[in-house]
Amino acid sequence: MPHIALPEGLPGIRGAMAFRPETAKPLNELVEVLLRGPSTLSPGERELIATYVSSLNDCYYCQMSHGAIAAAHLNGDEELVKRVKADFQHAAVSDKLKSLLVISAKVQKGGKNVTAEDVAHARSAGATDLEIHDTVLISAAFCMFNRYVDGLGTTQPGDEELYRQRGKQVAREGYISVSKTYLPAAAAAR
Amino acid sequence: MPHIALPEGLPGIRGAMAFRPETAKPLNELVEVLLRGPSTLSPGERELIATYVSSLNDCYYCQMSHGAIAAAHLNGDEELVKRVKADFQHAAVSDKLKSLLVISAKVQKGGKNVTAEDVAHARSAGATDLEIHDTVLISAAFCMFNRYVDGLGTTQPGDEELYRQRGKQVAREGYISVSKTYLPAAAAAR
Repeated sequence: MPHIALPEGLPGIRGAMAFRPETAKPLNELVEVLLRGPSTLSPGERELIATYVSSLNDCYYCQMSHGAIAAAHLNGDEELVKRVKADFQHAAVSDKLKSLLVISAKVQKGGKNVTAEDVAHARSAGATDLEIHDTVLISAAFCMFNRYVDGLGTTQPGDEELYRQRGKQVAREGYISVSKTYLPAAAAAR
Repeated sequence: MPHIALPEGLPGIRGAMAFRPETAKPLNELVEVLLRGPSTLSPGERELIATYVSSLNDCYYCQMSHGAIAAAHLNGDEELVKRVKADFQHAAVSDKLKSLLVISAKVQKGGKNVTAEDVAHARSAGATDLEIHDTVLISAAFCMFNRYVDGLGTTQPGDEELYRQRGKQVAREGYISVSKTYLPAAAAAR
């Protein structure tokens, strides 16, 4: 049961966002830019970073949600998502993404863990400064989202199919658009 | 030296925000709502929560910046800010704020650490659901900001007076307004 009286029928972060639409607005704008905005990292790669950090933080709702969105962007390849979470160094992703996931794991533990060597390695694998920036911010942002979702004791359904369907919708329509289906109309219209 | 080529002369998060104004916009909107928007927690109390979490995450820039903003909101009481960081249970703050800082410390370690007892205790000290929600989100958000600032290896000046002056300005004018002094004009105008 959630720690506070969140609206019923809205699992995970959706209940929290509907409870506080004033903060939901910038939170949705942040993920829209970070995970779907113009970037040389594909939406699938960025969702894999979000999913990996959420798994390190052991947030069930976030790793299921973003894992499903990642899979939807990656031709439905749920096995790849699972492999990245379990052992990304042996997953079928680029060396550049592997080097960025090393940075993600450091950020998850704390920002000071990122070393000049980690960054040099990512650069040698082809990562740009913008890609390194976005990797740090995506990883940091999911350290926020995971704590937000778990810290309020939100409802987190166990039915994988639910995440799969929602994942396809978010991959297709985006965070801001989908948020209009559960945020109060006044907030969604702002 | 920062891990990536951030604009010079802009310490801490300001360099990162000027590097990536697209994400700076929702980040500034988030803190504006969370730390300065309408709330039954005063801006000073909310900045104390942000400062405390930043000190737990050992982020020098964030604890100095938000500590200075907190002091500016609290009649310049820098000693109170230091006491909250060092030993909030014996600081001259309300029992309600103490109960919320207990929740903050749990969120900083990971959202699952927050217990029904922590929340019941905060309620018995007078905290509302909205105050509990905002405490969780402020604490989670500073787990993001701290990792963003340290994960990029940003410049963090040691001169306290610099933070003091900036703190007064942010307390007076707000995050979005002050961000216009260092974000590219195109981004600040959006």
